[in-house]
Amino acid sequence: MHQLIEKMFVGAFGNSLLDQGHDAVVFEGESEKMAFTTDSYVVQPLIFPGGNIGTLAINGTVNDLAMSGACPHYLSVGFIIEEGLSMETLWTIVQSMKRAADEAGVQIVTGDTKVVDKGKGDGLFINTSGIGFVGHSQQIHPSQVRPGDAVIVNGDIGRHGMAIMAQREGLSFENNIESDTAPLAGLINNLVSEEMDVHCLRDLTRGGMASTLNEIASVARVSIHIDERSVPVREDVAGACEMLGFDPLYVACEGRFVAFIPHNHAGAALKIMQAHPYGKGARLVGQVKARSSAPVIMKSKIGVERIVDMISGEQLPRIC
Amino acid sequence: MHQLIEKMFVGAFGNSLLDQGHDAVVFEGESEKMAFTTDSYVVQPLIFPGGNIGTLAINGTVNDLAMSGACPHYLSVGFIIEEGLSMETLWTIVQSMKRAADEAGVQIVTGDTKVVDKGKGDGLFINTSGIGFVGHSQQIHPSQVRPGDAVIVNGDIGRHGMAIMAQREGLSFENNIESDTAPLAGLINNLVSEEMDVHCLRDLTRGGMASTLNEIASVARVSIHIDERSVPVREDVAGACEMLGFDPLYVACEGRFVAFIPHNHAGAALKIMQAHPYGKGARLVGQVKARSSAPVIMKSKIGVERIVDMISGEQLPRIC
Repeated sequence: MHQLIEKMFVGAFGNSLLDQGHDAVVFEGESEKMAFTTDSYVVQPLIFPGGNIGTLAINGTVNDLAMSGACPHYLSVGFIIEEGLSMETLWTIVQSMKRAADEAGVQIVTGDTKVVDKGKGDGLFINTSGIGFVGHSQQIHPSQVRPGDAVIVNGDIGRHGMAIMAQREGLSFENNIESDTAPLAGLINNLVSEEMDVHCLRDLTRGGMASTLNEIASVARVSIHIDERSVPVREDVAGACEMLGFDPLYVACEGRFVAFIPHNHAGAALKIMQAHPYGKGARLVGQVKARSSAPVIMKSKIGVERIVDMISGEQLPRIC
Repeated sequence: MHQLIEKMFVGAFGNSLLDQGHDAVVFEGESEKMAFTTDSYVVQPLIFPGGNIGTLAINGTVNDLAMSGACPHYLSVGFIIEEGLSMETLWTIVQSMKRAADEAGVQIVTGDTKVVDKGKGDGLFINTSGIGFVGHSQQIHPSQVRPGDAVIVNGDIGRHGMAIMAQREGLSFENNIESDTAPLAGLINNLVSEEMDVHCLRDLTRGGMASTLNEIASVARVSIHIDERSVPVREDVAGACEMLGFDPLYVACEGRFVAFIPHNHAGAALKIMQAHPYGKGARLVGQVKARSSAPVIMKSKIGVERIVDMISGEQLPRIC
């Protein structure tokens, strides 16, 4: 079985680098400055509306590289397969990984497969690690966030988390909620390559927008003020959140990020984002100010200010 | 718990790159040519004589980079923890990963932790991916192996596999067999940086020496002839193999490799290897010839030639 699986992977992903077939792949770097990241994916169910564990594993690592301002190039993939996983499911996942890698413009260049006994895994776990190259001199990092920065999100939030939860709870909504999983490197590349100061980029994964903003505010020692009326949440997502008792601000996305842009560049940044398929719904959601009473403060729909706390515990386990 | 664990990792592994605390780590490359590899580790038991899943995960990825002729620099670590894993066990493993990384001269620069429910994992799975830089112009690859090459192994084989199996079977031998897990980059660095032609390097992991030689012979389209009397196997390992029904040629090692060296350089290569702590037991075990009847042929202790086949199936599951 092991050899069959490896043949399946080579068949799907095959490229001249992967085909080197040695313990490590060797290639030439594209620039001196490079980025490196890793993530393991343990999402359940493995396949969900709008994607599966494989698309998530490709897009997630592509996005982590993009958020550091790097252009993603090379990915590794490590599969941990539980005995008994259907080959059809695995093939579906592998094929969509190939499509996701092609769309994101990255190559899967090295991989590994392990099989564990039935009852010692959960169908499939995937690790992807990625290498990107940085061709510009900007410092893109939470520590660069300054009072006056505009906070822009590239679209409506909470869809990935609610797609998973609805599936798990066996709920079906009138309009099926699909995960927002998407590769963001193209959009980020447009943003960073223009004559545009970008202070920080961060995807809204584990813990959602609320946790992301809290983390950034605490590194940059600022207060981030957001306006609830500006935060885009689709109606069916808001409804599902209400029904299942979640706050969309804390729900994970897999194709959404926040950009911190100096205020005088915010209009131009919005335009660039809105011109890209994955930024059509981009909105200005808030502003950075000097640190006051709390790291993240939200003006609610009825005009009252409230503190948006860090998430405590995991609101949605195994969402990615 | 999640935050506690991440604090544990940062405490143990902390360095200026890991402390960047962004989605991906950014650094300067050391040379244009680089190597990239990944492996997941699912060994059971997690802790065994001579090492644990953590030392294996560091050394294994360090060795995969070294075998491609690269000098290992940066590692990522992804943990998949099953709920209920004792924090003491995790801490033991994390501390030995730190020691192994220090010994191998690599930095753990990015990481990820996922927790899965009890019954959906097996204590702990670890993925490590690694980046190395190649500072020389040699092509080190199975396709470079030529008739006339000497085949050298850096020490006695089969210890890792039998350490695991003895532990699993609850056997104790008079002299406890300890895993041979070791970082080989230092030794390889001595070998490659000298004025020495190195055609191929390959560690003897999954499937042991027999499978490794078969793989290389089939890529290079040669026959590899080995002499059983020259293949070093420790007496207690040979005894354990006999008792449990294994052939040491197929048993995985985690600190052993074969080097293919042009015959006129073999003596010098042996000396360099024997001068290093992880090559003290280095031995010339065979020679490459033009492809004849089979990829790998062994002259047995009683002087009879036999074909050494590729392993069929996994003789030792979850050995790494």
